[in-house]
Amino acid sequence: MSVDGGRDGRRRLVVIGGDAAGMSAASQARRMSGPEELEIVAFERGRFTSYSACGIPYWVGGDVPERDQLVARTPAEHRARGIDVRTRTEVVEIDVAGQRVRARDVDSGAESWTSYDGLVIGTGARPVRPDMPGVDAPGVHGVQTLDDGEALLDSLERAPGRRAVVVGAGYIGVEMAEALINRGFEVTVVNRGREPMSTLDPDMGRMVHGAMEGLGITMVNDAEVTRVLTGEDGRIRAVATEGAEYPADVVVLGIGVRPETSLARAAGLPVGAHGGLLTDLAMRVRGHGNIWAGGDCVEVLNLVSGQEQYVPLGTHANKHGQVIGTNAGGGYATFPGVVGTAVSKVCDLEIARTGLREKDAHRAGLRFETVTIESTSRAGYYPGASPMTVKMLAERGTGRLLGVQIVGREGAAKRVDIAAVALTARMTVQQMTSLDLGYAPPFSPVWDPVLVAARKATAKVRAGRP
Amino acid sequence: MSVDGGRDGRRRLVVIGGDAAGMSAASQARRMSGPEELEIVAFERGRFTSYSACGIPYWVGGDVPERDQLVARTPAEHRARGIDVRTRTEVVEIDVAGQRVRARDVDSGAESWTSYDGLVIGTGARPVRPDMPGVDAPGVHGVQTLDDGEALLDSLERAPGRRAVVVGAGYIGVEMAEALINRGFEVTVVNRGREPMSTLDPDMGRMVHGAMEGLGITMVNDAEVTRVLTGEDGRIRAVATEGAEYPADVVVLGIGVRPETSLARAAGLPVGAHGGLLTDLAMRVRGHGNIWAGGDCVEVLNLVSGQEQYVPLGTHANKHGQVIGTNAGGGYATFPGVVGTAVSKVCDLEIARTGLREKDAHRAGLRFETVTIESTSRAGYYPGASPMTVKMLAERGTGRLLGVQIVGREGAAKRVDIAAVALTARMTVQQMTSLDLGYAPPFSPVWDPVLVAARKATAKVRAGRP
Repeated sequence: MSVDGGRDGRRRLVVIGGDAAGMSAASQARRMSGPEELEIVAFERGRFTSYSACGIPYWVGGDVPERDQLVARTPAEHRARGIDVRTRTEVVEIDVAGQRVRARDVDSGAESWTSYDGLVIGTGARPVRPDMPGVDAPGVHGVQTLDDGEALLDSLERAPGRRAVVVGAGYIGVEMAEALINRGFEVTVVNRGREPMSTLDPDMGRMVHGAMEGLGITMVNDAEVTRVLTGEDGRIRAVATEGAEYPADVVVLGIGVRPETSLARAAGLPVGAHGGLLTDLAMRVRGHGNIWAGGDCVEVLNLVSGQEQYVPLGTHANKHGQVIGTNAGGGYATFPGVVGTAVSKVCDLEIARTGLREKDAHRAGLRFETVTIESTSRAGYYPGASPMTVKMLAERGTGRLLGVQIVGREGAAKRVDIAAVALTARMTVQQMTSLDLGYAPPFSPVWDPVLVAARKATAKVRAGRP
Repeated sequence: MSVDGGRDGRRRLVVIGGDAAGMSAASQARRMSGPEELEIVAFERGRFTSYSACGIPYWVGGDVPERDQLVARTPAEHRARGIDVRTRTEVVEIDVAGQRVRARDVDSGAESWTSYDGLVIGTGARPVRPDMPGVDAPGVHGVQTLDDGEALLDSLERAPGRRAVVVGAGYIGVEMAEALINRGFEVTVVNRGREPMSTLDPDMGRMVHGAMEGLGITMVNDAEVTRVLTGEDGRIRAVATEGAEYPADVVVLGIGVRPETSLARAAGLPVGAHGGLLTDLAMRVRGHGNIWAGGDCVEVLNLVSGQEQYVPLGTHANKHGQVIGTNAGGGYATFPGVVGTAVSKVCDLEIARTGLREKDAHRAGLRFETVTIESTSRAGYYPGASPMTVKMLAERGTGRLLGVQIVGREGAAKRVDIAAVALTARMTVQQMTSLDLGYAPPFSPVWDPVLVAARKATAKVRAGRP
């Protein structure tokens, strides 16, 4: 086995994982520190770098015509910027004491050690594949990587019929259901929870349920898939729950992801209750001054609950990479945490949340009041005004904002940013009632829906005071 | 002259002005305090109450078909809620020492005094009518009230030709230009400033200029109208500047409004440098415990500059009314101030601002850095992604956010709310770089345009430090 460790006076930064966190870190470190000072080697076991996994449903659904549109920067483009990207090369061991990693060429199987001065772990997530009969049969697909997307598109093309089952009704499940409808499939979504979008409280999830049915999607809630049934040809033919069978020509698994930390665990690095690596504010793996980790393989601090949480989202991965690259390149930056913002859509229904749901707040030991209001996206008299529902949680007594969920048509998703900033600033709902938000008839009623909710929450907090 | 002052143990709240501030105050006071405790008398010189003046351009342009859609609550509806609304009745004198107002029936001319325990002044604004020849000729219109809107619509219908001149290129001017285009007129906008939308810095106003020309509107900048020329029939025929004439079958004045405070001044109430009434945080007129004022007749504190400002906007008027009504009804509420948010559109171009422009910051004695970035409304690969320009001002040294201006297509206007909340919370641009804003490909690039601007501003502030 060769050892790539010869030094020429330059420091070497090794990056494991060529997507958002890893390559953002590499790119930012390169901006901070030139090739004469810092060598950057990035290992990626797949063929692609810096791609938008969040865009896969839109590519599968046909809104984005070409796979390569999802690639923000190719390996060649990274190399042209002085980053030594090694694709189809999987890191199989981290030797923390020896400050080196062992990498394997996926095609040839050849292995070699590469030493590092600094290490960035951006190994991402792996989709949950339930341990049940038939789950590995042809026709069952995850949608985590571009390769997954290609395999699914291929499978859709070859499918003997037009029946699709999506397992799971979180963001990916819901977005994939829409994508498959757009591809002309009959779609059934089988969901373990009471309502789709368990990132919302069930009363808000019910609205998503209605909208999905409106699109012709069959929603099966409170149902757990127990096996995938295959035909004589070994190909899938149906999905079974405890009490029913759903015929399927293709099955998409959208039941979430887990942090990919097997390498890090084997190396003795600390992981938290949700299975993600634990870092400090500078995104250094706790207890390790020269190892950083970011993106879908780490846990993050939720600034509202004060607890660690697992939030695999590209937007955090990019921020982590930015912070890591700044620090690894000799600068200083921190990532303070998240407030739990997420937005999505099913056709023209926009879905948004930030902060804590009711169950999160209970779990964090908080007592709270909730209000739910109906308003409109524009002034009521302005053409195209559409309904918008805002749910707001505020801490009992103090009135501190704890969370907001919004479901509506246009303007519902990004309106949650108002609450995201207010949560970050630890505002009370009373303070929010006088926020100077943009008003004009085409964009908002004179009282923005978020302000209407804040007013009602303020009144409820006040009434609840002893 | 009759005197309406007989008391039956109830307190009496008198409201002057039946639009947003006055009637919001009356309604909220009524919610706080029943008719057995509090009598509420509201005087309005026009025929309408609680209407959306901001909606007038959309009514004139045809987007809103009926005038009455702009009326949120009619006099009869207010009366049904226990508010004694007296329309076509103008208050002509406030006797502060005597705690009474003198009102005149507009039709009969009859006058009477009404005594009060509490007084709310919501007299609004009057449009600036430049003192120049011809300005009162038939065919010259303001657009402040529903009556103005009706007169203008009538004039458009009878106009001998299809040429319209709009004087002024602020919000009203720009919105009226679009309305007149929608009505099939050839529109020329004559503007005193370097670029339209002087509420933006000129570099951002230039984009609005381009968009207006794209709609076929003729923009004439750096030009002051000196007279309105009339024909032999006394009707307008053209608008003249120092060097040119612009033929006109109808003229719309959109050169802003001034606080309507003649009554209050005559009564010795304090007005500020911008001509608006000065209030305390509870919206009481300074030095007067039982007189409140709100809406377009008051000045407000700008929380960013620390100075009083005049911002006639319906959204503030409603908030003022809410605060006044709470206090007048026996509760407690305050209005902390504004950050200067305003949004508008010209066809599909959205225009937003909050905080300070460059000249505001200079005037406030602040030193600052500015950055301007180009991004997109959605992920670059997602269909319909459109360009968005964000300009950001940050204080030198501290990095405190001072202002944001956004011009773009979809999603540009309400994105400014992120900055409005950040200004209220006195965040630095560095703190903003880690804001957990909603991200999904249909709604934002992975770095929201506001975050891109914050990152660039952070770098510039840092580079500028000694």
